[in-house]
Amino acid sequence: MDSGYATPNQAHSDDGNDHDLPSPPILDTKAVLDIDLKTPDYHVPRDERLIRLTGAHPFNCEAPLSVLYDAGFLTPAGLHYVRNHGAVPRVEDADCLDWEIEITGMVENPFKVTLRELIQDYEQINLPVTLVCAGNRRKEQNVVQKGSGFNWGAAGVSTSLWTGPLLRDIIGKANPLRSARYVCMEGADQLPKGHYGTCVRLAWAMDYDRAIMIAHKQNGASLEPDHGRPVRIIIPGVIGGRSVKWLKKLIITSTPSDNYYHIYDNRVLPIIVTPEMAKDETKWWKDERYTIYDLNVQSATVYPAHDERIARVSNEPYRIKGYAYSGGGIRVGRVEISLDHGKHWRLADIEYPEDMYRKQGITELYGGRIDMYDRHTSFCWCFWEVTVNVVDLEGAKDFVVRAMDENMNIQPRDMYWNVMSMMNNWWYRVAIIKEDDYLRFEHPTQPAMIEGGWMPRVKAAGGDLLSSNYGEAVDGEVSKPANE
Amino acid sequence: MDSGYATPNQAHSDDGNDHDLPSPPILDTKAVLDIDLKTPDYHVPRDERLIRLTGAHPFNCEAPLSVLYDAGFLTPAGLHYVRNHGAVPRVEDADCLDWEIEITGMVENPFKVTLRELIQDYEQINLPVTLVCAGNRRKEQNVVQKGSGFNWGAAGVSTSLWTGPLLRDIIGKANPLRSARYVCMEGADQLPKGHYGTCVRLAWAMDYDRAIMIAHKQNGASLEPDHGRPVRIIIPGVIGGRSVKWLKKLIITSTPSDNYYHIYDNRVLPIIVTPEMAKDETKWWKDERYTIYDLNVQSATVYPAHDERIARVSNEPYRIKGYAYSGGGIRVGRVEISLDHGKHWRLADIEYPEDMYRKQGITELYGGRIDMYDRHTSFCWCFWEVTVNVVDLEGAKDFVVRAMDENMNIQPRDMYWNVMSMMNNWWYRVAIIKEDDYLRFEHPTQPAMIEGGWMPRVKAAGGDLLSSNYGEAVDGEVSKPANE
Repeated sequence: MDSGYATPNQAHSDDGNDHDLPSPPILDTKAVLDIDLKTPDYHVPRDERLIRLTGAHPFNCEAPLSVLYDAGFLTPAGLHYVRNHGAVPRVEDADCLDWEIEITGMVENPFKVTLRELIQDYEQINLPVTLVCAGNRRKEQNVVQKGSGFNWGAAGVSTSLWTGPLLRDIIGKANPLRSARYVCMEGADQLPKGHYGTCVRLAWAMDYDRAIMIAHKQNGASLEPDHGRPVRIIIPGVIGGRSVKWLKKLIITSTPSDNYYHIYDNRVLPIIVTPEMAKDETKWWKDERYTIYDLNVQSATVYPAHDERIARVSNEPYRIKGYAYSGGGIRVGRVEISLDHGKHWRLADIEYPEDMYRKQGITELYGGRIDMYDRHTSFCWCFWEVTVNVVDLEGAKDFVVRAMDENMNIQPRDMYWNVMSMMNNWWYRVAIIKEDDYLRFEHPTQPAMIEGGWMPRVKAAGGDLLSSNYGEAVDGEVSKPANE
Repeated sequence: MDSGYATPNQAHSDDGNDHDLPSPPILDTKAVLDIDLKTPDYHVPRDERLIRLTGAHPFNCEAPLSVLYDAGFLTPAGLHYVRNHGAVPRVEDADCLDWEIEITGMVENPFKVTLRELIQDYEQINLPVTLVCAGNRRKEQNVVQKGSGFNWGAAGVSTSLWTGPLLRDIIGKANPLRSARYVCMEGADQLPKGHYGTCVRLAWAMDYDRAIMIAHKQNGASLEPDHGRPVRIIIPGVIGGRSVKWLKKLIITSTPSDNYYHIYDNRVLPIIVTPEMAKDETKWWKDERYTIYDLNVQSATVYPAHDERIARVSNEPYRIKGYAYSGGGIRVGRVEISLDHGKHWRLADIEYPEDMYRKQGITELYGGRIDMYDRHTSFCWCFWEVTVNVVDLEGAKDFVVRAMDENMNIQPRDMYWNVMSMMNNWWYRVAIIKEDDYLRFEHPTQPAMIEGGWMPRVKAAGGDLLSSNYGEAVDGEVSKPANE
């Protein structure tokens, strides 16, 4: 067992096994960028390819969609999306192993545990987990009507191999009271309304299949500052906002977290709730039914990329590619694309790289067990592909993609607009523009304030984005956008 | 503990507690009906109100939708939907307690257990559970294009309080091997291709939160023949087809059931699979991703009932009512109705009677514990209501209802047509017909071969049922059905 604290440079040192698993991504975070030197994050090295969604600071970012996809199943830590509410806590190497977490609240045996003890005294496991920001694809909702959140594109999703003990082992030692129902978590980040905090059901925390972890390594390396250094929660299948970084406190309670950031964030308020109602009426924020935990089913197209052009020659095959995921450990069962607004569909091929870890059996890696052999759950993204002929694309105005998970829940055609613009998962539409010698493809939007995408274009032309024709002119009605 | 075998008449004898729970439904199954006397089910008493979906025999039925709803949260056993593949096994009172179940396969300790032992040697629990046939609302798909299944209306759903031990206690005693993955189940019914059998994941069977039971009582009474007398499986949150009746065998395996009825039933094949492809290509039936386990999110309107009329006077309030459910223990978080095809929505009030059992704390009933206090899961239907003004209905062509569950999965506008017409959960639309003095309401269909509903009417008029206007003429286009 690895009882020392690995610096990023020692990342691969304890992987001495002979296995067929893909190599973990090479560490590529180089240095602190100039833009960060003037901010409280002056000590945080970052990858310059990341797209900043909220200016220089706080740091919220996603990778360019194609860069993310091309990086493969495991996202390099430097390309992993980041959602920071404030300044990144600075923790020196020498202090990491002494980092202390308090377990308190409705337990018979409250105690404190250091990272050193978490590594030495508890069984270490490795799990590949896809984290997704609940705001993934939010920009699309903001184009329809600006809500209260910033502009995520479709790359608010990333996958890593996380290492650490199961949360159930730590909480089990504290022995929760029978009337306890939630695990509240608090991070070390100092924010205007206190520390960031949220919660998850105690039953999930104790559930082996849910596999909630306290992680101290990402892809075999110690956590980077943006990802919770030295230790964080990882809640597979659940929105990233519940996987508290820089973990300091676990509080067992009978009611959900009363932390400001738990109550006023990560909710899908009903479609009828206007920004004014959300501002004036607290009841919408206090209704636990609108709190997001498990992810919903999602898919998006990566290739053709936005503004990609292909030559207008017929009978050439083209491979459309993208990603899909669902929540709660539920596998994506199928992905389908339509070139005629949903009248006819084509079935995509799907690859589930996660299953490579499952098939490994019981294997050691990074001082822990790859804990997939006994698990039926699916906590990672998968990749889909469909081959079409260019002549088919030539004959279409667009194509849409949708996924259905193994619970037979399916992405809806219709956008569920909501004040926080969360969990947006309507069909992902790519428009096909005919140019002289080329077909050019338009994704719905581009992240942050980057211009481009069919949604802003159609909106500017007066089209009704939510109509069954996506606001585009229909045949025989060339100059007038369809308002249904 | 109740160690005797209760006949239906003794149903309420061991409920001596003082509690606020709703009384269990009064037993109303009277006698064997004439229609059954000529069939192998000549010994099975049934309620004559049930609508038979496959003629006289085998017995497949649902209650009239309003009758089911009016019966309340717990469905009387006599009104509970029934899905039988063949003749009901006949079991004499004197033989019930000696009924034997074999636990075999990949276990260290195979054994047999009698119903007497199941009752005497294992902890008994009570759980309210909604069962749903995967074919619920299938008639709507059959109107679009006839598939391979018979015509369920929207009443293929029922809720009972079930009593018995948790399956995990029995399987735990057998000690499954680490490489085991599935629990296969077999019933006593003799069918053309062998006994009815199917499977469920072993991880679910061992999961306390999934609460899979071996039940020997329904609403406090011994099981009726149509519901598995003397003993059956109950799998909360999962389609009814996995809850094997007349249980004889549990086989622990590494792969899914190879039973004919597991492979060739209860699947949502991809939308591209035609009846011919399904017949010719086995691969569609062998892909586990298309097997249905957890229910998807669903809602339907009960009132106004089909063909109900209300007076066309304005400013009167009308209360629209219906049910909703989801699968996998996930609560329905919201229900919304729209009077303009989804452009605007109204939020429904929802009641969750299941929570009455949760709030009871740890209570005894029917010789067992009401096992809800420690559970966060939701395995029952809920009831929604919305008040509208009659003048609003007067101004609308129809209304649609949709539910979203706490995973933020939502019912789709679009029907996912599939060969077996399973898991149909597109928005439930009720058409509003203006008559001289009345508004008349039309549900999509009526169950079995019963005529009526807007779907057959619109289809007969040449309308495209799946268009965004449901094939109805739009304003300014009175005589021509819309074909998109």
